[in-house]
Amino acid sequence: MSGRERLLIIGGDAAGMSAAAQARRRAPAEKLEIVAFEKGDFTSYGACGLPYYVAGRIDDPEELVSRSAEQHRANGIDVRMRHEVVAVDLDECVVRVRDLEAGSEEVEPFDQLVFANGAEPIRPQFPDVDAEGVHGIQTIGDGIALREHDVSEHLGDRAVVVGGGYIGLEMAEAMHERGMSVTVVEASRQPMSTLDEDMGALVAEAIRKIGLELQTETRVQAFDTDDHGHVRAVVTEHETIPADIVVLGIGVRPSVGVARDAGVEIGPSGGVKTDRRMATSVPGVWAAGDCVEVFHRVSRRPVTIALGTHANKQGRVVGENATAGYATFAGVIGTAITKVCAYEIGRTGLNEKEAREAGFEFVAATIESTTRAHYFQGSPEITVKVLAEKRSGRLLGAQIIGREGAAKRIDVMAAAIWDEMAADEFVELDLGYAPPFSPVWDPTLIAARKAASML
Amino acid sequence: MSGRERLLIIGGDAAGMSAAAQARRRAPAEKLEIVAFEKGDFTSYGACGLPYYVAGRIDDPEELVSRSAEQHRANGIDVRMRHEVVAVDLDECVVRVRDLEAGSEEVEPFDQLVFANGAEPIRPQFPDVDAEGVHGIQTIGDGIALREHDVSEHLGDRAVVVGGGYIGLEMAEAMHERGMSVTVVEASRQPMSTLDEDMGALVAEAIRKIGLELQTETRVQAFDTDDHGHVRAVVTEHETIPADIVVLGIGVRPSVGVARDAGVEIGPSGGVKTDRRMATSVPGVWAAGDCVEVFHRVSRRPVTIALGTHANKQGRVVGENATAGYATFAGVIGTAITKVCAYEIGRTGLNEKEAREAGFEFVAATIESTTRAHYFQGSPEITVKVLAEKRSGRLLGAQIIGREGAAKRIDVMAAAIWDEMAADEFVELDLGYAPPFSPVWDPTLIAARKAASML
Repeated sequence: MSGRERLLIIGGDAAGMSAAAQARRRAPAEKLEIVAFEKGDFTSYGACGLPYYVAGRIDDPEELVSRSAEQHRANGIDVRMRHEVVAVDLDECVVRVRDLEAGSEEVEPFDQLVFANGAEPIRPQFPDVDAEGVHGIQTIGDGIALREHDVSEHLGDRAVVVGGGYIGLEMAEAMHERGMSVTVVEASRQPMSTLDEDMGALVAEAIRKIGLELQTETRVQAFDTDDHGHVRAVVTEHETIPADIVVLGIGVRPSVGVARDAGVEIGPSGGVKTDRRMATSVPGVWAAGDCVEVFHRVSRRPVTIALGTHANKQGRVVGENATAGYATFAGVIGTAITKVCAYEIGRTGLNEKEAREAGFEFVAATIESTTRAHYFQGSPEITVKVLAEKRSGRLLGAQIIGREGAAKRIDVMAAAIWDEMAADEFVELDLGYAPPFSPVWDPTLIAARKAASML
Repeated sequence: MSGRERLLIIGGDAAGMSAAAQARRRAPAEKLEIVAFEKGDFTSYGACGLPYYVAGRIDDPEELVSRSAEQHRANGIDVRMRHEVVAVDLDECVVRVRDLEAGSEEVEPFDQLVFANGAEPIRPQFPDVDAEGVHGIQTIGDGIALREHDVSEHLGDRAVVVGGGYIGLEMAEAMHERGMSVTVVEASRQPMSTLDEDMGALVAEAIRKIGLELQTETRVQAFDTDDHGHVRAVVTEHETIPADIVVLGIGVRPSVGVARDAGVEIGPSGGVKTDRRMATSVPGVWAAGDCVEVFHRVSRRPVTIALGTHANKQGRVVGENATAGYATFAGVIGTAITKVCAYEIGRTGLNEKEAREAGFEFVAATIESTTRAHYFQGSPEITVKVLAEKRSGRLLGAQIIGREGAAKRIDVMAAAIWDEMAADEFVELDLGYAPPFSPVWDPTLIAARKAASML
C-alpha cells in the first residue's frame, strides 16, 4: 500500500475544520488523507453570529460561514456534508457513517481520529417542548427558522425566551430589534448566572430599561399549544405567558455520546477528557471544541466552555499534534463578553461562587466609573467588580457591565489574571489614556486599586 | 514650636494635587501643613481635554477641572492660585514665591518640597512666533483663547497646526469639527512620530481621508503677520500657507528651570531625576508629573513622558512617601492612545527605532483585521503591528490604527509587554469574544501569532 495515513474528523465546524486545515498545512495530500464528516449543511460557521442573523443585521446566512465545504475541498480536505458518524470502533479503527441524504451507512477506516462533535442544546423535559414555534438556537437551520417567522406581518408578536444567559439575552435583543414584545424567563434569581448576583442584578436592571420583560426565579413547566400544534403560551409556576414564538436558550452540553460509547474517557465536567495536547484517553484519538473539557487555569479544575475562540485554538493544536508536531492548549480562564442593546457585559476568571468552590479566600471590590473622561457629555457608565485572593493579592476574577466601551476592557484583566498578577501590580500598569476612551484612572485600575486597598 | 511639618508643593495640576491629596489623607492637619502654589488659574485640570473644549464638545472649561482650588481648600490643603515659585534655596529650606496678582514676593519655609512644575510647550525659534492668532495649547487659558476665536462668524477660516503628534492631530480635529479648513505641517516623513513610519503612513492616509490637509517633511520657517500684528500666513520651506489662526503642537519639555537652579539633579532625558520613590537627588525633595524623568521598563532607559495618568500615579506615590509611607512608581512602557475623527490610534512599548536603540534584535509583524466579526456590515478595519524579540519571543511593542474599537485594544498588549510575555504565550490568552466586539481571533492575537511564526 501507499503508506498514506488517514485522518478522520467528526464535525465540520470551528474545531474540526481548524484541525483539518492545520493538518493540511503541515502534511501534503500524498502523505495524509483528511476526511471530515459534518451532519449539518454548513462548515466552519459562526454560531455566535446567529442572533445577529435573526435580528436581520446579516442578510445571508452564508455570511456566517467563514469557510465553505467547497473552499475546504479546494484546500485538499475531503468534506462530506450531511454525513453523521453514528459509531466508532476503536479496536478496528473504523467509524460507521450515515449518509443523511441517501439514508445509507458506510464504514470508514482511520489511522487517527478527531472528535469535534460540538455541543447540543439542553432541551427541557416538559410537555410540548417540540411544538411548532419552539426553536432551539444552535445551527444555521435554527436561525433560518427563526428568521422565517415573519415578524413584519405580525408586529406586536410576543416572544418568550427561556433562559437568561448569553444566548438567551442575545436572542431576546434580536427579537426586540425585530419589533416583538419579548419576555425572558430565568430560573435563577438574576440573569447571566456566570456573574455574581449583584452584577446580575445590574444586568436585570439594564434589560428592563431596554424594554424587555424579565421574570426571574421562574421555572417553565410546560408549553401550551393551539389546535394546529403551534405554541401559544409558556406556562410557568407563576402564570401563563402568551407566546407566538419561543426560543430555548437554556445552554448547551458537550456532545459526547459517540465518544463515550466508543470507550473514550469522559471527564468529571461532562466533556471528553483531554490532556494539554488535546489527546483523549485513546492513543491516536484527539478531541477539540465544545465537546471537550479543558483545564481552568485559576480554579485548576476541568471545565466545559462552548466558545468559538477555544474551538479554533484547540483545533489548530490537534491539527499540529496529529501531524507529528507538538502543540499544547494552555487552558481557559472563562472569559466571556456579550452585548444586549446598548449594554455591554464581560467576565473573566472566577466569580465569587466559583472562587469559594475552588477554596480561595478573597476580597471583592466593586466600583462605578465611566468609559470616557468625566467631562464628555453622556460619558457611558461602567461598573467593574474585581476579586483578589487574600494574602497574595492575586487577581482571581473580574466582571464588567456598562455601556459603550465597557466589555472589551475585560481583556486587560484577563491578561493579568492569566499571568497571576496581583491587584497592586495591576494598578501600576501603563494603560492607554485619552479623554474619548478613558478617565485618567481607567475603571479597571480603580477597581484593582480598591481591591488592593481592602487586602 | 508645634512640631507641625510643612510640605510645599510647586504646581497645582494632576501631580501636585494628587501628592497633596494623598498626603492629606495620610497625615492630619495638626501634624502636617500642606501648601500648593499654582501660577495659573486652575487646579487639577485635564489638559488632555482641551481639544474637546476647543472643538465645542465641552461648554464650560471648569468641567475640565476635576477638583477646584476651593475643593482642595475644603480638604485642608492651602492652595495659593496665581502664585509662582521663582526660586528654591535648598540649604535654607525656603522657596521664593511671586504673587502674580499683587506683584509681590514672599519667602516660604518648608520641611519637604515637591516639584510638580509640569512641562512647557516647545516654542519654535523663528520670527513672529508670538504674533496675535498664534496659540499654544497647554493651559485652560490657551483653550479659552482658541475657543474665543469665533469661527461661526468666519466660516472658512483657515487654521494651520504646526506639529503632527498627538496634541497637533487632536487640535486639528477640533478645528476641523468647528468648520475650519485645516492644514497640519509636520517636519518628519509621517505624522505621529512615536509610531513607525509604516504605521504613520496609515495615519497620514486617515487624516487626508477625513479632509485635513497634511504636509509632511515640511519645516516652518516663519509666520507672516498683517499690519495689526496678527498672523496671516505660515511660511514653510516649500510655500506660504494662508492662516487665520495657528496652533503650535510641537510638543512639550519638562519644566525644570527652578529645580536645576536650586541644584536638583536633572537626568539625561531632560527631566528631574527621580528614584522609584519619586525622590530627587536631594533628601526631602520629591518630584512628580510632566517635569520628571522615569524608568522605561522595556528599554531600561530614563524617559520623559507628559501624561496625566503617570502624573496622577506619581503624585500619589509622593504623597505617600512624604508622609513616612512607602510607595514606588513602577515605571512606564510608553502607552498612548488618541482619536482623530473616526480613526483611533494606539501604541505601547518600543517602536522599531526605539527597539534598535535599546539594542534589541526583533521581528515585526503587521496584520489587518476588523474590530468586529467579519459578517457585521461595515465591520471597522484595524491594523496591528507587533514587535517581538528574537530568541526569547518577548513582546517589545505594539502599534494600532483603526476605526471604532481599535485603540483600547492596546491595553491588553500593554499588560503583556509589562509582564514580559512572549508572543506565543500571548496567542494563548483567553480574550473576550462576541461578534459585536471581535472576530473569533482577536486582531491582537493574530498579530502576535504572526510574530511568533516569524521567530
